[in-house]
Amino acid sequence: MSTYHPLSVQEAIELARTIPGHFSEGADLSCREIGDGNLNLVFHVTDTSSDKSIIIKQAVPYAKVVGESWPLSLDRARIERQALQIQHQYCPSLVPEVYAYCDEMAYTVMEDLSSYTIMRKGLIEGGVYPNFAEHIGEFIANTLFYTSDLGMNQQEKKVLAGQFVNPDLCKITEDLIFEDPYRDSPNNNYAEAIADEAAALRSDLPLHFEVALLRDKFLTRSQALLHGDLHTGSIFVTPESTMVIDPEFAYYGPMGFDIGAVLANLLLNYAAQPGWSKTEELAQREQRLLDMVPAVWNEFESRFRALWNRDLQDEMARTPGYQDHYISQILKDTAGFAGCKMIRRIVGLSHVADIDGIPDDALREAAQRKALAIGKALVRHNRSVSSIEHFMEVITQAINEIEVSI
Amino acid sequence: MSTYHPLSVQEAIELARTIPGHFSEGADLSCREIGDGNLNLVFHVTDTSSDKSIIIKQAVPYAKVVGESWPLSLDRARIERQALQIQHQYCPSLVPEVYAYCDEMAYTVMEDLSSYTIMRKGLIEGGVYPNFAEHIGEFIANTLFYTSDLGMNQQEKKVLAGQFVNPDLCKITEDLIFEDPYRDSPNNNYAEAIADEAAALRSDLPLHFEVALLRDKFLTRSQALLHGDLHTGSIFVTPESTMVIDPEFAYYGPMGFDIGAVLANLLLNYAAQPGWSKTEELAQREQRLLDMVPAVWNEFESRFRALWNRDLQDEMARTPGYQDHYISQILKDTAGFAGCKMIRRIVGLSHVADIDGIPDDALREAAQRKALAIGKALVRHNRSVSSIEHFMEVITQAINEIEVSI
Repeated sequence: MSTYHPLSVQEAIELARTIPGHFSEGADLSCREIGDGNLNLVFHVTDTSSDKSIIIKQAVPYAKVVGESWPLSLDRARIERQALQIQHQYCPSLVPEVYAYCDEMAYTVMEDLSSYTIMRKGLIEGGVYPNFAEHIGEFIANTLFYTSDLGMNQQEKKVLAGQFVNPDLCKITEDLIFEDPYRDSPNNNYAEAIADEAAALRSDLPLHFEVALLRDKFLTRSQALLHGDLHTGSIFVTPESTMVIDPEFAYYGPMGFDIGAVLANLLLNYAAQPGWSKTEELAQREQRLLDMVPAVWNEFESRFRALWNRDLQDEMARTPGYQDHYISQILKDTAGFAGCKMIRRIVGLSHVADIDGIPDDALREAAQRKALAIGKALVRHNRSVSSIEHFMEVITQAINEIEVSI
Repeated sequence: MSTYHPLSVQEAIELARTIPGHFSEGADLSCREIGDGNLNLVFHVTDTSSDKSIIIKQAVPYAKVVGESWPLSLDRARIERQALQIQHQYCPSLVPEVYAYCDEMAYTVMEDLSSYTIMRKGLIEGGVYPNFAEHIGEFIANTLFYTSDLGMNQQEKKVLAGQFVNPDLCKITEDLIFEDPYRDSPNNNYAEAIADEAAALRSDLPLHFEVALLRDKFLTRSQALLHGDLHTGSIFVTPESTMVIDPEFAYYGPMGFDIGAVLANLLLNYAAQPGWSKTEELAQREQRLLDMVPAVWNEFESRFRALWNRDLQDEMARTPGYQDHYISQILKDTAGFAGCKMIRRIVGLSHVADIDGIPDDALREAAQRKALAIGKALVRHNRSVSSIEHFMEVITQAINEIEVSI
């Protein structure tokens, strides 16, 4: 099995049998390929006579996005597998366990999460996740702290960073998030109804300036091992628990990029809620989504500070005032990256179902304009954001302005 | 020759004969080992009957500094060789040519620079180098621009950065420059006469705060392929020409670190000049050294801007105002790193002959205090430095204050 080829369903079953401690000998295994076919094959192998199951994820040597196909390194399977293992080490209850892998065949055998819902789908259906802020706060605090120069030996960190050089996947981010929305790119994708917004993005030079600074941070700031694609489609939830998956975009980058991804996707779902003629239930749902933003940040911040105070590996970082400064810079970056991620999901190549799935044209357009208003405000003000309360004020003001104008 | 062992003089001669196009068949070659024995063997192979000669530099698997010895990866020879080749590619007249190498044996065969003087020695002897600012400005502008995301493909840059993961050598910098001078470390080394200064450095928390920020930049900012140790002992000069050698500390870091190293070492030599009872000649020498600081920066800046305007690889970096902002940030970093490098050369492990070589105790102490005053001022003000004129004002003010107090 050492020369790469896409696994067949039969091969996936045979492979599943070799994983120690899962299926009993002679178990009647069945297998379905459940991937979306764009980047990976995903085999779901179940024992028909028990509740045991596993997932085998295998990378394919190309990416398909909205019909386009381009070659993509299989090394991303190794990167994803290694990132999963590191994240599982620091957050065992929040990241699936890797049971086996083969880098040549670009597959990873891991814990099955079929009992979970993809969080984006859950949010669209109005799901309530009271533990989410605590869980994701723990995930980002632990994974970012312990892979940074603060929480690990600085020489080992450099070697680890070298193992996460991820040019193919980073290029997708650099193009789709930090460039295409601001120029006339064939990758862009938006309805004629918001062509005015797209045109305004292309000519907004003060906004470009902020995006250029954020792009530079994405390109050059090797702060911690990022998940790299931490949107609500990479998070599996139940009302009680949370699992983070799919870290194939993992690389050493700025901490605010991961935190910004979480907040941006909560805000995209928020923007998808109808802005007027609300029922009481809808108003509560809106408020719940908005409240999750500071809740996630506050969980992250308090946990990150606790880790810093307990496990700091860098003597100079004990200097009074440095921790406050460091965290305030993460918050500014978080605002900027969250804004970039909201903007690209409206005018760029890849959208979110939260908004695209709104059947009514006028409501969908209003949601798009609201998301853009929040995203632009976060980018514009990112360097001056001074607290999470200020972060929320920037959002609220943008919402109020756009609700008057719609 | 593929298993590592230190070359003998006889082996060096045999190796030299194999380099195509240098020595005629049957040439009478002689060889001397001229290294200082701390990090490398350096063989100087000459043809006794012609003026032809080459250098063979071989790493040894340890470092010796002031009697201490610790293991050091031989991979630094590969890093140095590869950095030399890249720097030679962008500055062929300013970096010696690599003729041959063997990574397993950790040697590089290169152009002989015996006709040059080590710049530190030249400056100590009062040498005048009217082309130096132009040459070193070209070196730093070209090597930093073309290895950054501005001047090269951003995916290729990531792969290149992965080849320059250099934990062993970076650790020396992290410890000796960004930590030891600010704590009670057995690595520190200073005369009893300036014990008050050393104690003040250990308790100066606002200074520690700035050093912690600069240390973080050194640890995490993968901006360009740095030389990494660009002091005047790594620069060979004649009155007409300049050659940059010894990039074994090369890694992807913040641009200001290389520029700061050059300026710090000019300022260390400046500080070594007697501050009072000057002859006209000494006053001119002092002024010449001070004038080189803005001259180097201005050469760098104008060349870097020209490269940016001609060869930029990043569309978003064309945003109006971004170039000015980027360069102003490099200047701030340059000030901070220059300051850190001056401080560590006075109280840290490794000193400079410019100052340690002053025979008179009182003059040497005055030079040490002057260097510390300039270094601390640059660190303290680094984030507010707004122009090279302002940078010089910070220095001048520090000099004036210390000359009153000495």
